[in-house]
Amino acid sequence: MSVEKTAVLGAGSWGTTYAAVVADAGFPVTLWARRPEVAEEINASHTNERYLGDRVLPELLAATSDDIAAVTDAEVIVLAVPAQSLRVNLGRWKQHLRPGVKLVSLMKGIEVDTGKRMSEVVAEVAEVDPAQIAVVSGPNLAREIADRQPTATVVASESIDTAEVVAEISANGYFRPYTNTDVVGVEMGGAVKNIIALAVGIADGQKLGDNSKASIITRGLAETSRLAAAMGAEAHTLSGLAGLGDLVATCASPLSRNRTFGRHLGEGMSLDDVIAHTSQTAEGVKSAPAVLALGRRYEVDLPITESVCAVLGGRLRVDELAGLLLSRKRKHEGPPA
Amino acid sequence: MSVEKTAVLGAGSWGTTYAAVVADAGFPVTLWARRPEVAEEINASHTNERYLGDRVLPELLAATSDDIAAVTDAEVIVLAVPAQSLRVNLGRWKQHLRPGVKLVSLMKGIEVDTGKRMSEVVAEVAEVDPAQIAVVSGPNLAREIADRQPTATVVASESIDTAEVVAEISANGYFRPYTNTDVVGVEMGGAVKNIIALAVGIADGQKLGDNSKASIITRGLAETSRLAAAMGAEAHTLSGLAGLGDLVATCASPLSRNRTFGRHLGEGMSLDDVIAHTSQTAEGVKSAPAVLALGRRYEVDLPITESVCAVLGGRLRVDELAGLLLSRKRKHEGPPA
Repeated sequence: MSVEKTAVLGAGSWGTTYAAVVADAGFPVTLWARRPEVAEEINASHTNERYLGDRVLPELLAATSDDIAAVTDAEVIVLAVPAQSLRVNLGRWKQHLRPGVKLVSLMKGIEVDTGKRMSEVVAEVAEVDPAQIAVVSGPNLAREIADRQPTATVVASESIDTAEVVAEISANGYFRPYTNTDVVGVEMGGAVKNIIALAVGIADGQKLGDNSKASIITRGLAETSRLAAAMGAEAHTLSGLAGLGDLVATCASPLSRNRTFGRHLGEGMSLDDVIAHTSQTAEGVKSAPAVLALGRRYEVDLPITESVCAVLGGRLRVDELAGLLLSRKRKHEGPPA
Repeated sequence: MSVEKTAVLGAGSWGTTYAAVVADAGFPVTLWARRPEVAEEINASHTNERYLGDRVLPELLAATSDDIAAVTDAEVIVLAVPAQSLRVNLGRWKQHLRPGVKLVSLMKGIEVDTGKRMSEVVAEVAEVDPAQIAVVSGPNLAREIADRQPTATVVASESIDTAEVVAEISANGYFRPYTNTDVVGVEMGGAVKNIIALAVGIADGQKLGDNSKASIITRGLAETSRLAAAMGAEAHTLSGLAGLGDLVATCASPLSRNRTFGRHLGEGMSLDDVIAHTSQTAEGVKSAPAVLALGRRYEVDLPITESVCAVLGGRLRVDELAGLLLSRKRKHEGPPA
């Protein structure tokens, strides 16, 4: 297979790491960094120190701060900008897209203003056929992949051909993609896990143990699965790497931004203080109300998302959260509603 | 509801903790400890120092080293002996069982010689109706419960009445039981998770990260679910507290015997050295070949269990395990076979 030019747009930790994955698979990559000094650092020293410390990036990866140059002629464009900025960014790039380009989303979130999944925003803004769009998600902590530790992921597209092209340009000795056609399931797994990680973080900050956290993870996956199923996803996707796998990796990792954000809340910090204390707001904080709105639209009960929204909205104290989640009046453990 | 006498047989960490749970629910409990000095310690100082440190046990909990006295007249008998010793122990107690007694299994394992689940061994040896038998399993790390941290669990019985009696004698402010009639699903979740925890421990010892471990957990639950389904379990049980919940809690905890056993193997210790180094052999080590045999009988592929058996049998090196699990020739992530 010949893919001459892959562009990765966004040089945060996951964008940079995924660009390195593609380069390590033997495909040349252009990585767009918004800040010129980051592009210069990557080209000069093969590092992105802010996000990946002293890890050395592959030779096949070149950076630029010229987004239009990065997009132009790219056969595959990988989108790794903050979820809520996708619409504005992609609008700017749209007229430079090569016909037939494949667009890949690494983003995990729901657009707050519209309630749309990332691939829906891509299709709408870029005006491309959904068969040209793929999403990548799984138990993919960026720093471990940047260390070239063995990792599996899921590439989903309505078109299995598109999924396979994306799988091929990112398959290497340490990164193993599995293909799937359930775009809705993969995206919902990725979006809701950030909210569940916030709840696990709050429990952590409250000094609750592994029993409580495992219960939150279990029920969190159950509510994610119910919502995703109502939206048309297949159950096995949520039990797979992009559902359970991603959730477990995120909740296990002290590196997770969402879990860390929740932990600060659980320790009693105010929302404003946590936001001031962290360089970026965790995506789950932004997506939570949008996910709750999806639950209402699809008539699916989302008790953990609802509790997290109530904490974020100042309507529930963090010390009430765990008790609430464990004391729900549901004596019989039954199948998903 | 009136239950005058509950006996818990086995004063290890889980047996002792569960006895405390029942006492904290307001029901008098007799706890049998094999060693007289342990029974004396519990009665004199309300501690079981070897297993639970200086945690104070409730007043309603009395210990004895006379097993026949413990069993006699008990309306509910909770079995918390090592899985492989159940048949011999229960054979000795059988003639002293009160008619209509409810028998509760806390044990997680498969009887090696017969391939039977614990509740099957109970029914066969005690010659009681399966409707008198319940099993308790969930994300239940004993020390956290002994610290009275909020914890949920599942009580399963073919008879919902039996499940509800057992739920009622163990429901208190920090321990919340959910009832279920899927005995097979609950027991298989508990038995196989010990084997998955061994695999996660081996990955840990090999210094693999959270991405790899999350993949092993995801695929481990998938193979457990396939086997349990083939044996008649319901899918939602394995996605619930006794499947996913227990697996996640065990794999998250540095206290897990099975995970620790695996970690020593992963670090390069020989099987004999690990056994010599640990006071008890982890149950997953004993059950793994029995679970693999069940997989063969029900024609279900169990790649993780098979790999763990191969490591335990000296046919696979620990450094080959993770690569093997991540490099399976399965490019499409599909529904369970």
